[in-house]
Amino acid sequence: MWFEVYRVHNPLFRDFLKEGFYLIHRNPYNRLRAGEHIVRGQMLCYFIVMLRTLIADLPQNVGKTVLIAGWVDVRRDHGKIIFCDIRDRTGTVQSVFLPQQGDALSIAKDLRSEWVVRLEGVVNERPEKMRVPGPLGSIELEVTAIEVLARAAELPFEKDTPVNLETLLNHLPLTLRSKRLRAVFTAQARIIQAFRDTLNKQGFTEFQSPALVGGDAEGGAAVFPVEYYYGKKAYLASSPQLYKQILVGSLERVFSTPKVFRAEKSATTRHLSEYSSLDLEMGFINDHTDVMAVVESVARAMATSVPKEVFLSLEASQPLLPSDSFPTIKLAEAHDLLFQETGVDKRAEPDLDPEDERWLCAWAARERGSDFLFVTHYPVQKRPFYVYEDESDPGFTKSFDLLFRGLEVSTGGQRIHNPFLLEEKIQARGLDPKNFSFYLQAFRYGMPPHGGAAIGLERFTARLLNIPNVKEAAIFPRDMNRIDTLLHDTNSEEF
Amino acid sequence: MWFEVYRVHNPLFRDFLKEGFYLIHRNPYNRLRAGEHIVRGQMLCYFIVMLRTLIADLPQNVGKTVLIAGWVDVRRDHGKIIFCDIRDRTGTVQSVFLPQQGDALSIAKDLRSEWVVRLEGVVNERPEKMRVPGPLGSIELEVTAIEVLARAAELPFEKDTPVNLETLLNHLPLTLRSKRLRAVFTAQARIIQAFRDTLNKQGFTEFQSPALVGGDAEGGAAVFPVEYYYGKKAYLASSPQLYKQILVGSLERVFSTPKVFRAEKSATTRHLSEYSSLDLEMGFINDHTDVMAVVESVARAMATSVPKEVFLSLEASQPLLPSDSFPTIKLAEAHDLLFQETGVDKRAEPDLDPEDERWLCAWAARERGSDFLFVTHYPVQKRPFYVYEDESDPGFTKSFDLLFRGLEVSTGGQRIHNPFLLEEKIQARGLDPKNFSFYLQAFRYGMPPHGGAAIGLERFTARLLNIPNVKEAAIFPRDMNRIDTLLHDTNSEEF
Repeated sequence: MWFEVYRVHNPLFRDFLKEGFYLIHRNPYNRLRAGEHIVRGQMLCYFIVMLRTLIADLPQNVGKTVLIAGWVDVRRDHGKIIFCDIRDRTGTVQSVFLPQQGDALSIAKDLRSEWVVRLEGVVNERPEKMRVPGPLGSIELEVTAIEVLARAAELPFEKDTPVNLETLLNHLPLTLRSKRLRAVFTAQARIIQAFRDTLNKQGFTEFQSPALVGGDAEGGAAVFPVEYYYGKKAYLASSPQLYKQILVGSLERVFSTPKVFRAEKSATTRHLSEYSSLDLEMGFINDHTDVMAVVESVARAMATSVPKEVFLSLEASQPLLPSDSFPTIKLAEAHDLLFQETGVDKRAEPDLDPEDERWLCAWAARERGSDFLFVTHYPVQKRPFYVYEDESDPGFTKSFDLLFRGLEVSTGGQRIHNPFLLEEKIQARGLDPKNFSFYLQAFRYGMPPHGGAAIGLERFTARLLNIPNVKEAAIFPRDMNRIDTLLHDTNSEEF
Repeated sequence: MWFEVYRVHNPLFRDFLKEGFYLIHRNPYNRLRAGEHIVRGQMLCYFIVMLRTLIADLPQNVGKTVLIAGWVDVRRDHGKIIFCDIRDRTGTVQSVFLPQQGDALSIAKDLRSEWVVRLEGVVNERPEKMRVPGPLGSIELEVTAIEVLARAAELPFEKDTPVNLETLLNHLPLTLRSKRLRAVFTAQARIIQAFRDTLNKQGFTEFQSPALVGGDAEGGAAVFPVEYYYGKKAYLASSPQLYKQILVGSLERVFSTPKVFRAEKSATTRHLSEYSSLDLEMGFINDHTDVMAVVESVARAMATSVPKEVFLSLEASQPLLPSDSFPTIKLAEAHDLLFQETGVDKRAEPDLDPEDERWLCAWAARERGSDFLFVTHYPVQKRPFYVYEDESDPGFTKSFDLLFRGLEVSTGGQRIHNPFLLEEKIQARGLDPKNFSFYLQAFRYGMPPHGGAAIGLERFTARLLNIPNVKEAAIFPRDMNRIDTLLHDTNSEEF
């Protein structure tokens, strides 16, 4: 109703018409033509004619009448005036409801957090002393009209209040609206795109790796069984490893970013039942160092894909990136260093404990100015069957882990490309080569020397953005006890 | 051994050193410095110093000595001379082994298809009358040295021979090397990236939608059960629908490209057990036509992301794209048209049969110059519970299918955003709102009018590239009878 009145009296009517032209051009499925504006019902016309302005674009519209849409972030009553912070995907702006706009003001009195509104108003510069920092801190919207698009129930807690992890996960549809989680998952979208962009530029081809597999690719990881057709079992892939190797034979350089699945009974801050694996594989390498060079380029792009302000808002520091390449240390050297510097003797161990990884990363940051550290040459028995043994360092492998701020975020290395040796290694692990017949075809028909790596997207995101638990870096995390809702106090059919 | 000899005598030695500098700079993990070249073993030096040239770059290197690496595509013996077509990820080049290069020629005599080799030689222009079409048709490599990196077993059939689908799928590690499949899956990588790029430019944020869900989101699709922890059942997601709607409340415009899973007992040319769903969802729409405008922009970008030569090589025609928007027709109008033009009366039916979709697409191509056609306003009962009923056309929905060359490749529309109405609709379908408690939170806390769509990547690829069976447009297709290998004549643990 209100819109009709508005249309008749608004002095900017002609400008709106021009804008209307643009919108009709943009979205021809409305089948409106410019001439119909006047003829049609005013209500309909209004929506067609008036284009939404994104909040981030308001500073370029000072003095103009605009339409914005979004959520009520906070309402503050100041005597006869009401202030509302309105949020859309691009920003938050203060909106003022004045007594002279009686209709709008009376609706504003009912507004609550998370109500969805469409507001019309004039963009004003704020008085000098009322300005706050940030690009939208110098303006406000003087509201002339409001439409409520959706109401919201009373919130169980304020959206931006820090809550414990259980509460956060129980209320994800609400907590995902918090400044913090929106910043995290907007950043994560940039991180994964940086991975793809970097590899596309280096001649890699993306492929869609399968989730359903016939068996456990790596031989050893805990996998989830799936009830497939006719009583047959399938499994959820724990890695795209075998598929990306097969594709080296076809496309030479490939990557994939599939969900992979781990059924370990583990409830650590590092475990998820499903996570996004950023996998790459490349042919015609000399050794694992060629893979490390690509992984470095990818890790740098991912680490620098997030704008400075996001680090600030999350109280995370920007990553230390050396001007030279990432520091690299053999596992044995790492154990020696640890013994030398701390007296802790783990030189007989085939791996690094979590506390060793943290110590080594602190050392790399202090001594080499790097939050990233490559550890190479893990022993053969600690790596999967396809790993390539270093001819000049027998018993140790041409493989690496990439540590980032105390946590392993990537594993990679050179793979065996000789089909006879590969079959031998499969057998030596007590696996049946017959179960790998599909995979082994790729090697039988000519496979170049190759290698690759995988980066855990959620782990990388967590380390980069100072998130203690990887569950907060997965948008809908699954673990032993939870698929959206808790499994033990809900029935398993519950969504 | 041979490399040592080469190093000492090659007059381009100094040039290689320069290139070596570059490589060392690019990959510092080798820890070689320029000065070490002379001191180290010649064999090792060779690999460091000599950079691989990609075959596509050979025309810019006429007269130069280069190193290439790849697969033997075909060998042809011509008296005392041997010709080999060598293939890498960028192209295929003819290589000539001449009698004066005795060592290389004698190795060349053993070469078979798919052997992996590294070749050194001089790039020559071919004599005028020996040229063939294509960018690499005017040059050849006069081989001066060869190294075999991997041999290949005898092929069961020539790689580029057309074979039936069963044979093709049984030998994917080999058939994925064919010109045809490499063209298809390189194109598919471009198609999915076009989807992402188009949406990123329009303010959408990517998210990683979960594969493991607690129940069947849409209520009705056949889903695969997963044995989760402690005897609990989980399911494989048949769609990211509910998650993308939840995220409209947080990020307003989102997309995701997850694998989704369908357990229907269907063996048609259109069915896969898992496929890539290109999903988008957006808030603050006026109606479904806003979604259609975005879907059109995405479909155009996807259709034009593939270079002309790929269509030629696959004997596919480039898609017909109207200069105006895609033609749009209501389902009822479509049935009327069908009756009028063909006499077939399906006006009482709530949906289109496959042959109707083909007829309508032929009509749209003929009459409107478009390989794409939107069909809107399917009846309420044929759509999921969350679909938005058209106030001005009761019983019909603000929803659409996008048909492309005779096949539905996308479905979308406006969704219900009122939580009370949504709960009502869930109940009306015989579903329990309690099972949707997590999802319904998003609506309770303020949800704007919104809508979205999903495009099947494999279907789209198949229609675009003239591939009759969607299984050939999925890189490792899964169906009722196959996960890599056939399920009925192998044990279920087989990879």
